[in-house]
Amino acid sequence: MNEPIPLPTDLLLPTETESALDVIAVGAHPDDVETACGGTLAKMVRQGYRVGIIDLTDGEPTPHCPDVATRLAESIRAAECLGVHARVQLNLPNRTLMDGFVARIALARQFRRFRPRIVMGFGQKTAMASPDHWQAMQITDAAVFYSRLCRWDEHFDGASVHAVARQLYFRLAFEPDVMPGESHHLIVDVGDCLEQKLASIAAYASQFDHKPKIADRIRAAALVTGSQAGCWAGESFASAHPYSVSDLVRTVMSV
Amino acid sequence: MNEPIPLPTDLLLPTETESALDVIAVGAHPDDVETACGGTLAKMVRQGYRVGIIDLTDGEPTPHCPDVATRLAESIRAAECLGVHARVQLNLPNRTLMDGFVARIALARQFRRFRPRIVMGFGQKTAMASPDHWQAMQITDAAVFYSRLCRWDEHFDGASVHAVARQLYFRLAFEPDVMPGESHHLIVDVGDCLEQKLASIAAYASQFDHKPKIADRIRAAALVTGSQAGCWAGESFASAHPYSVSDLVRTVMSV
Amino acid sequence: MNEPIPLPTDLLLPTETESALDVIAVGAHPDDVETACGGTLAKMVRQGYRVGIIDLTDGEPTPHCPDVATRLAESIRAAECLGVHARVQLNLPNRTLMDGFVARIALARQFRRFRPRIVMGFGQKTAMASPDHWQAMQITDAAVFYSRLCRWDEHFDGASVHAVARQLYFRLAFEPDVMPGESHHLIVDVGDCLEQKLASIAAYASQFDHKPKIADRIRAAALVTGSQAGCWAGESFASAHPYSVSDLVRTVMSV
Amino acid sequence: MNEPIPLPTDLLLPTETESALDVIAVGAHPDDVETACGGTLAKMVRQGYRVGIIDLTDGEPTPHCPDVATRLAESIRAAECLGVHARVQLNLPNRTLMDGFVARIALARQFRRFRPRIVMGFGQKTAMASPDHWQAMQITDAAVFYSRLCRWDEHFDGASVHAVARQLYFRLAFEPDVMPGESHHLIVDVGDCLEQKLASIAAYASQFDHKPKIADRIRAAALVTGSQAGCWAGESFASAHPYSVSDLVRTVMSV
Amino acid sequence: MNEPIPLPTDLLLPTETESALDVIAVGAHPDDVETACGGTLAKMVRQGYRVGIIDLTDGEPTPHCPDVATRLAESIRAAECLGVHARVQLNLPNRTLMDGFVARIALARQFRRFRPRIVMGFGQKTAMASPDHWQAMQITDAAVFYSRLCRWDEHFDGASVHAVARQLYFRLAFEPDVMPGESHHLIVDVGDCLEQKLASIAAYASQFDHKPKIADRIRAAALVTGSQAGCWAGESFASAHPYSVSDLVRTVMSV
Amino acid sequence: MNEPIPLPTDLLLPTETESALDVIAVGAHPDDVETACGGTLAKMVRQGYRVGIIDLTDGEPTPHCPDVATRLAESIRAAECLGVHARVQLNLPNRTLMDGFVARIALARQFRRFRPRIVMGFGQKTAMASPDHWQAMQITDAAVFYSRLCRWDEHFDGASVHAVARQLYFRLAFEPDVMPGESHHLIVDVGDCLEQKLASIAAYASQFDHKPKIADRIRAAALVTGSQAGCWAGESFASAHPYSVSDLVRTVMSV
Repeated sequence: MNEPIPLPTDLLLPTETESALDVIAVGAHPDDVETACGGTLAKMVRQGYRVGIIDLTDGEPTPHCPDVATRLAESIRAAECLGVHARVQLNLPNRTLMDGFVARIALARQFRRFRPRIVMGFGQKTAMASPDHWQAMQITDAAVFYSRLCRWDEHFDGASVHAVARQLYFRLAFEPDVMPGESHHLIVDVGDCLEQKLASIAAYASQFDHKPKIADRIRAAALVTGSQAGCWAGESFASAHPYSVSDLVRTVMSV
Repeated sequence: MNEPIPLPTDLLLPTETESALDVIAVGAHPDDVETACGGTLAKMVRQGYRVGIIDLTDGEPTPHCPDVATRLAESIRAAECLGVHARVQLNLPNRTLMDGFVARIALARQFRRFRPRIVMGFGQKTAMASPDHWQAMQITDAAVFYSRLCRWDEHFDGASVHAVARQLYFRLAFEPDVMPGESHHLIVDVGDCLEQKLASIAAYASQFDHKPKIADRIRAAALVTGSQAGCWAGESFASAHPYSVSDLVRTVMSV
Repeated sequence: MNEPIPLPTDLLLPTETESALDVIAVGAHPDDVETACGGTLAKMVRQGYRVGIIDLTDGEPTPHCPDVATRLAESIRAAECLGVHARVQLNLPNRTLMDGFVARIALARQFRRFRPRIVMGFGQKTAMASPDHWQAMQITDAAVFYSRLCRWDEHFDGASVHAVARQLYFRLAFEPDVMPGESHHLIVDVGDCLEQKLASIAAYASQFDHKPKIADRIRAAALVTGSQAGCWAGESFASAHPYSVSDLVRTVMSV
Repeated sequence: MNEPIPLPTDLLLPTETESALDVIAVGAHPDDVETACGGTLAKMVRQGYRVGIIDLTDGEPTPHCPDVATRLAESIRAAECLGVHARVQLNLPNRTLMDGFVARIALARQFRRFRPRIVMGFGQKTAMASPDHWQAMQITDAAVFYSRLCRWDEHFDGASVHAVARQLYFRLAFEPDVMPGESHHLIVDVGDCLEQKLASIAAYASQFDHKPKIADRIRAAALVTGSQAGCWAGESFASAHPYSVSDLVRTVMSV
Repeated sequence: MNEPIPLPTDLLLPTETESALDVIAVGAHPDDVETACGGTLAKMVRQGYRVGIIDLTDGEPTPHCPDVATRLAESIRAAECLGVHARVQLNLPNRTLMDGFVARIALARQFRRFRPRIVMGFGQKTAMASPDHWQAMQITDAAVFYSRLCRWDEHFDGASVHAVARQLYFRLAFEPDVMPGESHHLIVDVGDCLEQKLASIAAYASQFDHKPKIADRIRAAALVTGSQAGCWAGESFASAHPYSVSDLVRTVMSV
Repeated sequence: MNEPIPLPTDLLLPTETESALDVIAVGAHPDDVETACGGTLAKMVRQGYRVGIIDLTDGEPTPHCPDVATRLAESIRAAECLGVHARVQLNLPNRTLMDGFVARIALARQFRRFRPRIVMGFGQKTAMASPDHWQAMQITDAAVFYSRLCRWDEHFDGASVHAVARQLYFRLAFEPDVMPGESHHLIVDVGDCLEQKLASIAAYASQFDHKPKIADRIRAAALVTGSQAGCWAGESFASAHPYSVSDLVRTVMSV
């Protein structure tokens, strides 16, 4: 526990006072969050919620990206496409991300800082993809818990405890990853935000310019996910807890 | 298809004009619906929705019930406890209920008559319990479909087609029955309607007076179901379709 | 067992001698098979296999189709789009299809007639869709077995027994239906046959002309299914048996 | 309900007075029960329990069996191999067995006659095998319930109601059939009864003489099932209910 | 592997000679074991088995507990409520518990010391709860294996190897946590020990005095778990192995 | 990341130039791979593929093995039984194997060296067995990814990146371990290589000479696995991705 916590990079600070966020989506690398739930984040912004993105690592190096600054700049443009209010990069090690005290505290500090009601993140291994995703899930699970632990002020610079109310798991758009056990799924209708999502992904020219079919695949994933729930385009979220509703008619009739 | 469709018994007709219902819950026997989702129905009534119950059979004979009229009277009292707006009994054969044209049409006629937006019913075999439950699931699945079939007026006395918008599956309070495959669960917070639910069940003196522990068990089931979703008491519903939501924050933060 | 077996309608008889088929796909209604596995059937035809379609019912009436003859004509055009060698309609009752002796024998007779090595069909309930799908699965399961039963010639006009070697379950393109239990999935790369599939569906003008978005959805479903297996577009099949392979490298490296 | 209930054939009546049985295993055809749980039945007999077998049909015709009498005689010899106390054949229709009133009552009558504490039977579809297995599961589920229904004496010749205490599902030895949903498995150590099981299967010369590898496969299935639970050879049973134990140490340390 | 193994704290040593235990339940924090399986432990003690509890950490700090000594004292009182014969605290780090050599050895040393036949512990992530639970599962899995590894005496002060015969997974009373994959469940009838369980939980005044509803929820969880298995109150255990039984009738008829 | 990567031991170098392999199977300890997929490896060799085995650790000490050299010699003989072209031992720590940078790089270096098209390895926890298996799965997942990461030459001595095309998960022959979530299984027909597999296992005299029943169990596991897929003896593989096939008839009709 003596390894230093890396300093975060604030990519997109609100000009206004730094107020609390309603939702934070956590990815391992810049573009994870856009691919998994960009449409939902854009929609939440339109609905008046305050939304943030946390990238655990800078995601570099990758084959076609000249330097870290380029990926950073892309992630700012992607955030602008979605209209989110904050984006923070934690500078944890890309490719060798491991669950542990340092990573958990680095993320929990941001939860105490931005005080989100909802946290979204990876929920499963992703087949033949980065092991960072599996570690990110464990780090996010732990950080949600760390954020509400009292009597640990020494690790938080005096930031007061914050209890995240709900934790959701997302899935990468075109991966067949599923949640283990008995999961509880909701699909967000992103029909009116699908173009914003695709624009935010296209902002990562260094990652996707050489994969011209990616937009077709992500659009297809949104249509199929939406079809399952009776809307035009959708993104899927799961929770280990079932959802509690007070007005069942309104909930199941929505959209 | 030449077997006659039995005439339904309207137990509790609204004094007002016979207007459409928002929700219909379908049971095989009187007391199935109360046990599975009585709290939710009571809550919906309080929220201003119009709610109905359909019992496929009269549920008789049973060991301690003197006659059919007694069970009928109990089911009326139970409906009054919940405050529902209509209760109809289809007079299909108890104990030998079988999925088929007669049962499907008898139920679909009620869907066209009451035009519910949501239909709830059994979703699975119930272990070592009545085979009527398994047949009821198949009948309800089919009747939801029959209700929206055009060009079949000869079976519906001219009642126009009606498309049920959402179908939900309930579970008996204290049964470990689960939905097969990938299900999608919602839990309704019934903390403020739990006593109404228990009163509606107690109305069936012929069924439960000799099982004094039943109220404890049903109360326990509601507490455990609620605990899973972070509310005091709950009832659980599943859908073969995932749920579509337009405002994810409001949905997952509800209750 | 005294109810007469309806006479089948041969829609598209090969001009050549009536020789055996490699594959038969069984649907409840004309357009089921095209939606579920039209791309795979077209691909098989190109690969030199002999392929047939059996529709258990005529699928009529439906809202926008003027008469049975129109649907029949559409199903012929659809079959021509796919290039299949035979299409047979069994004239079992649409909407009230029920598993039983009559339906099983009617289908098994076709299996003995065409002697397919592989039979494909429904594998599960389809949520809020026709109960005929659930019955079709049970009928197909039974007919595969009936086809190989010796000492039952009286029901088969002397057609000799035929053992179907493999049975597969398909899924409708845009339905979240899954197989229960531990299933075994294969995805067929239909990238080069996707347009043929869409053309065969478009042939059903009476069913889809008023649903202009259907092609987009079916195309999206094919892209997502393909993405999961690393090909451009796919259709998914399951088996209750796991697959046996002799050359693992060639099988898993295929495509 | 006017179709007559077929008369059962008692194959192996105890010479003693017809006393109650502890366990009844129900198969669709003679040899189902031997294949699924012959070792367990033999073991129970050794342990002093009274055990019976009910075959719903006579299983004939089959390819190599000259007549019904031969299969009957084989089933008697098989029962003698296992040492069971009663075997009854219900003479329901082979190949076209269907769940319904007639079959349910025919089986429930035997439950009231022999008053078993435990009933075992099919729990699932069996892939590419007889549809009678799937119907047998539904019939057995219903008959267990019918057996305890009061006020139905007219169908039972005055036999008093009987509540089966536990219902278990078996699996055919070499089939990958699994129980749907969340099942609860127990494996019976049949190491000391495996040869008896194989002898009982060998008694069906008409079914297995032309399949010389069957004994190897069934022996292998027993070894693998046993290995999973830490014993030499086993047979597997599932229940939709979890098992209740009073002495956990003794239960989990057994064998 | 050079990090020192922390010294355990023996909270409740038997006055008699330190003899072997039949069962050890492992929790991450004091009160985990009571919540998960306090009733079962109390029942085992009554049945004459020797039972112990191991807490991996001291569980502190928590919001309302003044100091570590208070929690320790509470855990002694809880153990006395249950009547267990030994309780040991391993002084591994609370909140930052991580699977690794130090934790595995610390726990395995206790298994070699107390030589339990059965070990119980966490079997899954617990949603939005302490990440220590997920780590505790991995530590316990590994320590069960380490305990029986020969040729490793240098880490065990000469304690001889010990093979734990059975490993079980418990679940926190009111959590919807489930075992992944195909699990095998047993439910222990704790009807006569439920008050002891609640007393042991109430002994943790620092943890539960400000959560007055907790006893109601835990009681409800026991009633629902019991209902599923046909007893009044129960606690649930799972195993990755299916259970082997020698006397199926006695096992399934128990309670 | 400063911990040194241990040097591998090449057990069986091809006399020819060190050319690429088609398949690499990764085990935690020598004999894991033989038990899980020895028949498949032998079959692939016969089919002309180039096959290798990587053991992450030396597997020692074990109860009956005198020294590391003995186990090494046994693993060479086992490899000779199977006819594989290369076997490498990574000298990572037995018993305390942990997922992390050192282990991932050590394995990824071999993937870049031998450039396999297919990698096979553990896919799940193995109940009450070595925790090294669970860690091996995570290491293998990560190393498959590391192997194709560009811009990391400093860790690979200039070996160029290599993209493994397919990753498969195996299961130990007689363990009930299953893949979590929705898996995709293939069974390889190893009927003609079963004796080779058993010989390769028998080569580990230090591990199995005192377990005379092991050959019977492994043979039984192969027969049961094969029976499920319609072949005489089989080994099972799973993938998190479904399989893509181009010729469905040939694939499902194979064997």
